[in-house]
Amino acid sequence: MPEKRRKLALIVHSGTLDKLFCAFILGSTATSMDMEVHLYFTFWGLNALVKGGLEKAGLPSDYKHMEEPMKEALKRMKYPTPYEMLKRMKASGLLTIYACTPTMEMFGIKKEMLIPEVDKLAGASTFLDVASDADITLLI
Amino acid sequence: MPEKRRKLALIVHSGTLDKLFCAFILGSTATSMDMEVHLYFTFWGLNALVKGGLEKAGLPSDYKHMEEPMKEALKRMKYPTPYEMLKRMKASGLLTIYACTPTMEMFGIKKEMLIPEVDKLAGASTFLDVASDADITLLI
Amino acid sequence: MPEKRRKLALIVHSGTLDKLFCAFILGSTATSMDMEVHLYFTFWGLNALVKGGLEKAGLPSDYKHMEEPMKEALKRMKYPTPYEMLKRMKASGLLTIYACTPTMEMFGIKKEMLIPEVDKLAGASTFLDVASDADITLLI
Repeated sequence: MPEKRRKLALIVHSGTLDKLFCAFILGSTATSMDMEVHLYFTFWGLNALVKGGLEKAGLPSDYKHMEEPMKEALKRMKYPTPYEMLKRMKASGLLTIYACTPTMEMFGIKKEMLIPEVDKLAGASTFLDVASDADITLLI
Repeated sequence: MPEKRRKLALIVHSGTLDKLFCAFILGSTATSMDMEVHLYFTFWGLNALVKGGLEKAGLPSDYKHMEEPMKEALKRMKYPTPYEMLKRMKASGLLTIYACTPTMEMFGIKKEMLIPEVDKLAGASTFLDVASDADITLLI
Repeated sequence: MPEKRRKLALIVHSGTLDKLFCAFILGSTATSMDMEVHLYFTFWGLNALVKGGLEKAGLPSDYKHMEEPMKEALKRMKYPTPYEMLKRMKASGLLTIYACTPTMEMFGIKKEMLIPEVDKLAGASTFLDVASDADITLLI
């Protein structure tokens, strides 16, 4: 009998580059380990999934002075951008992306404004059901 | 034999409106799904439970320009306030609210300064025992 | 047969004093309860592990006005500093500290720049393996 696939359930509340990178490094590492990954985007995290949003993400103002050095280091490391990381995770077939419906209403975000990689528009109950059965639950 | 009730254990470290809403939406959705909810308030989260604190909560300065549009949208949506959400969760009988005792000492917060919905003054060990047995553990 | 030791797996993404204290209070309480503790330091959390970093940690700018009163209260309470707490956790033999390798490359941090209490330089996969088997998983 095949072992059950491990599962990571992660709420992405933040929309700054440091937090998005952290979320996407965890997610893409998990898919490369053959884990199922569920990313539930809410608040500023969901705002970053509006088309063009991932490209505009920067550091929070307390760390703004680190933004340019960090971006240069990432270029030098040939590190993928957040959107490239998200697309690679998607390509694994192991990632499900949820967009928080109350956040959409709160910020006037329509489905067609979001990047096409979003799988489901869902409320918190969908996430809680997935997370109840996950091996790792996190919020960033 | 009845199935064991699922359990959400959530540390509320933040006191800004975006984080409190996220915590309370997760918590109230969980109680509506008949899950047990344990909210452990610490640092800025606990400061928000000082009487009048939930009403004063706003967005962090990086998102201050979104505060008015967000509050207007919430009004238009007839969304409950954080305090109303907390009271509804309480009414379910499934919510336990913990106030972090080291935080109280650090900020000079006395029991009688907190909203009456707080159930227990407790240190981290109480939370860790509850969380060890929970299906979902998160920190916001 | 001895019961399996409970396990806390915590990602430390933040480097501000309020978040470091929260992480270290959770960690040291857990070791005092005979739990295994795994702290994975990344981004600003890892920057705080550069020698001298823990001593310089302060509050984020939104809470800067609380820094002096908080530090005075901590002194009055004879509260240990973050570095003292970390050393006590280490002394329990139950703590493993991981430094995130992509963060080190991103910020030009070399092993010898970090405090000697760091146990392992590791990528996210090491953390995900540990966390999959933990009772409590959190990110701060």
